[in-house]
Amino acid sequence: MLTAEERDAARNRAASQLRKAGIVLTDPETMEIEVADFGLSRLEETGLEVVVYINTDRVCSKEIVMFPWQLCPEHRHPPFDGSPGKEETFRCRSGVVYLYTEGEPTAQPVAQPPADGAFTVWHETVLYPGDQHTIMPDTLHWFQAGSEGAIVSEFSTRSADEHDIFTDPRIQRETQIEG
Amino acid sequence: MLTAEERDAARNRAASQLRKAGIVLTDPETMEIEVADFGLSRLEETGLEVVVYINTDRVCSKEIVMFPWQLCPEHRHPPFDGSPGKEETFRCRSGVVYLYTEGEPTAQPVAQPPADGAFTVWHETVLYPGDQHTIMPDTLHWFQAGSEGAIVSEFSTRSADEHDIFTDPRIQRETQIEG
Repeated sequence: MLTAEERDAARNRAASQLRKAGIVLTDPETMEIEVADFGLSRLEETGLEVVVYINTDRVCSKEIVMFPWQLCPEHRHPPFDGSPGKEETFRCRSGVVYLYTEGEPTAQPVAQPPADGAFTVWHETVLYPGDQHTIMPDTLHWFQAGSEGAIVSEFSTRSADEHDIFTDPRIQRETQIEG
Repeated sequence: MLTAEERDAARNRAASQLRKAGIVLTDPETMEIEVADFGLSRLEETGLEVVVYINTDRVCSKEIVMFPWQLCPEHRHPPFDGSPGKEETFRCRSGVVYLYTEGEPTAQPVAQPPADGAFTVWHETVLYPGDQHTIMPDTLHWFQAGSEGAIVSEFSTRSADEHDIFTDPRIQRETQIEG
């Protein structure tokens, strides 16, 4: 749950971060930046600010803005409606992103997720600007920005967030706005 | 036909244009920028400089760099291998792009394509930074940058350039490098 004021403040902050990175949005896009708190009401810790450029039956592209140390909780994109599930590539545009996927756990991971969360995959990939990584359908992943936040471009098949399966049962993908 | 020197000069120029727009490439990406002259050997007039970020069976994303007034000739993406053909969204990041698609011809179009070319669709859409337009499969389109050149992000289904059908029969999609 977020208040409308918290949502608008996060939108403004994300828009400013995008401008600093030289990424131009139209005014309607700026006003519609999605602020996702994943139902935990701890946006600074667990949350994303998302600009959806396009999401058709076949193609999706987004800009994901992350505040310092902000985190996207662990989830996967299962098959749906005859599709094998969402395939997505994350490309870091600014800042640093610590991405965790299935595979050999990294001995000393950089990310510091909240102790009460549910994080089961620990294979770390560090994405600096210009680096990218592709997540195949139905595989677990989560990611956290570094100390300066980050901007990540996502190139994918159709995005159907309502089908996402989160490891933490408390998570609700759709953000509720108070009042 | 381009010489290796012409290709490398175009790569360097495109890399500089991307840097000025704040778009970061890795060194290998910079060295592999595709320079396409469409077989006409008139790169300044008809050509594109392309960074392919990802091109899987399902998703493709590219950065297209255009020099001042540089033009992509008219073509369409037909069905292939059971796919309806490539669907692509062009998003202008810097500069201005004049995009021509099927539909009502624009009375006073801005673009000035070469007189010996083949251009049959004249419905103009002007894309400034932050503007985007989606091209559905198998529909004709061409585009030209404005006086300062342009950078265009392309989000699409799989890119299979070898299937593209150009209106001008002289066009060869694969660039030949001399010597």
